[in-house]
Amino acid sequence: MSAYHPLNEAEAIEIARTLPGLFSPGAELTSREIGDGNLNLVFHIKDASASRSIIMKQALPYAKVVGESWPLTLDRARIESEALLLEGTLCPGLVPHVHLYDPEMSLIVMEDLSDHVIMRKGLIEGNRYPLFADHISTFLANTLFFTSDLGMNQQEKKEQVKRFINPELCKITEDLIFDDPYRDADTNNFAESIRDEAEMLWHDGELHLEIALLRHKFLTHAQALLHGDLHTGSVFIREDSTKVIDPEFAYYGPMGFDIGAVIANLLLNYAGQEGWTRDEAERVAYRAYLLETVREVWNGFETKFRKLWDDQIQDRMSEASTAFQDVYVKSVLQDAIGFAGAKMIRRIVGLAHVADIDTLTDDATRERAQRLALAVGKALVKLNRRAVTIDEVIEIAEQQSSFVKA
Amino acid sequence: MSAYHPLNEAEAIEIARTLPGLFSPGAELTSREIGDGNLNLVFHIKDASASRSIIMKQALPYAKVVGESWPLTLDRARIESEALLLEGTLCPGLVPHVHLYDPEMSLIVMEDLSDHVIMRKGLIEGNRYPLFADHISTFLANTLFFTSDLGMNQQEKKEQVKRFINPELCKITEDLIFDDPYRDADTNNFAESIRDEAEMLWHDGELHLEIALLRHKFLTHAQALLHGDLHTGSVFIREDSTKVIDPEFAYYGPMGFDIGAVIANLLLNYAGQEGWTRDEAERVAYRAYLLETVREVWNGFETKFRKLWDDQIQDRMSEASTAFQDVYVKSVLQDAIGFAGAKMIRRIVGLAHVADIDTLTDDATRERAQRLALAVGKALVKLNRRAVTIDEVIEIAEQQSSFVKA
Repeated sequence: MSAYHPLNEAEAIEIARTLPGLFSPGAELTSREIGDGNLNLVFHIKDASASRSIIMKQALPYAKVVGESWPLTLDRARIESEALLLEGTLCPGLVPHVHLYDPEMSLIVMEDLSDHVIMRKGLIEGNRYPLFADHISTFLANTLFFTSDLGMNQQEKKEQVKRFINPELCKITEDLIFDDPYRDADTNNFAESIRDEAEMLWHDGELHLEIALLRHKFLTHAQALLHGDLHTGSVFIREDSTKVIDPEFAYYGPMGFDIGAVIANLLLNYAGQEGWTRDEAERVAYRAYLLETVREVWNGFETKFRKLWDDQIQDRMSEASTAFQDVYVKSVLQDAIGFAGAKMIRRIVGLAHVADIDTLTDDATRERAQRLALAVGKALVKLNRRAVTIDEVIEIAEQQSSFVKA
Repeated sequence: MSAYHPLNEAEAIEIARTLPGLFSPGAELTSREIGDGNLNLVFHIKDASASRSIIMKQALPYAKVVGESWPLTLDRARIESEALLLEGTLCPGLVPHVHLYDPEMSLIVMEDLSDHVIMRKGLIEGNRYPLFADHISTFLANTLFFTSDLGMNQQEKKEQVKRFINPELCKITEDLIFDDPYRDADTNNFAESIRDEAEMLWHDGELHLEIALLRHKFLTHAQALLHGDLHTGSVFIREDSTKVIDPEFAYYGPMGFDIGAVIANLLLNYAGQEGWTRDEAERVAYRAYLLETVREVWNGFETKFRKLWDDQIQDRMSEASTAFQDVYVKSVLQDAIGFAGAKMIRRIVGLAHVADIDTLTDDATRERAQRLALAVGKALVKLNRRAVTIDEVIEIAEQQSSFVKA
């Protein structure tokens, strides 16, 4: 294959034809570029007559993240592809199948998931996914355990840390989650109606201490290979299937960061239910479903992670001390709660928002949802180092939503 | 220069002649190999007539650490050289000057420090080094601050983490410090007379929890570029000069590991004073000197580190939260105390011992020193997460030595 250049739709079809066992030789293939053009080209290639299709994703050497274009190395495509392949090995069926990875073209060809829906959209539409907590907790337990010093050879892990050093994408997180929301930054993005809340964030010393601690955990704690951006927009879902996509933020960081991302996005939808549900009874029921999912995600993770520890530990000292497992798991829970709070806050006042709240059309309702999300987020951040059980998260969400109503 | 091969003395002289500004063209140079042949060749190259000399250190592609030879990559020579050059930039005068680094030959040519003495030897001889605490605390504060996310750009730090991934040398530490002493390992090395102590180490659950936590901090906490082996055998000293050598264990780890190494080795000599001093008054006085040095090393580090933080912080959130500095420094102290304890324990029952204790000729005295070192080490490990001030370390040493006497 030739040196890197952005593909056009015809070239994408040519590459698709070379993949063994996918399309029949004379098949009539169509190609449609469906990416948003910011970071990647995404081609949807289809043989309509045989109901076969694939996705072809090619990284672009720039990004349009903050409105203007800035250069990004293509190394992120390598990181995304290697992470996806590794996740596929550790969690068969929970990530898209990879047909081809071509490092020179920064190209990855994978399973088409257009029979799934992006989970954020599914939650906004009020759907329930009864297998999600089980699936995502398996994904979390397997990827986090087996890439950590607990579940793999400690020397090989160090080489893996090296392969997943990811300064460019980490920088986005460091700025947008762990810095900008806590000062009057140009990148911040919030309605004037909640300026009082934003300004409180800029002057809350207790919060700044906790955010500084979480930021340093993100910067220094090479605990496991993270997905790094595990919100509900990175999950393709059906009632019976869950597929985690887009691990381009993958790097070695604190386990709680991925778990916290899942919890935060469930709770952001919870806040959005100020507007999405038609009546109070429906709202109460859907919120109960979301909180139960939060609980099941954590409990599922904890159960599976402890089982892996008991059965497959690769670290003798971790086996020798039974008390260590309890201390370790508690610290992952505390991190998850802190990171969940930080992720909620930034989605309200920071650059990138979530549709669960931003697409609420009524101004007063949207503002109520935003204030609720901020209240829950701040409470989680302030709780984190003292937390003992996931129940405290549920209680905070319930308590804050009753305040907002009142 | 040609591809890698171990140099002989004549070749070493030829290389020395090519170095600009060192030896005059017709100088009569002598070369003597003074290494122990385990890991490196070390040539002492001298122009006697001009009183000029240099040290030439070449890594060998194997090691004889546990009696038998095993392969070690030459990458450790790159790591050592790069660490030494970086330390030289951050702490001028506190490491040997590097004349040449030849990556292809795994060769580093540096300042000859034979007018200094290895500090361990100096302490065994009962010498005092009034500037040591000031020098080593500067070394610690500068190297640890400026290689951390506090003192350098966080994206450049990630690239630096990558360059200092050091699996082979870390493996030695992981096994010999954080595993073997806590089980009946073949590598352990202790006198039958203290078998009771060794067996207690193998069955002490409280200790195992703390060691597992310290081990995981060593494995995962990429806080700063460490020297990685900062005992008193890695320090060349004179009354007026301190030079830190041999950073081949350098990697990104917890700051407290380096600080703890200094404290542990001062306390090992403290334990050895059971035998080295001639009378009780001399022993009391020298021990007071050692403990005062421990206190000054920590206090000097803390003062300088906080000053760097106040003046040169590169991390906005760390600047925004004043409380964060206190939490951070306290956590470094706690780590230092825990690692100090772990390092003392392993020097008594593990593979590699220290001359401060092992060369005591009287069996009963040596056993008393060993039991004292173990008692202090265990107490420090058990204290670590609760520690608040360095005074607690001093108190533990004083208390345990009074028990041993009694």
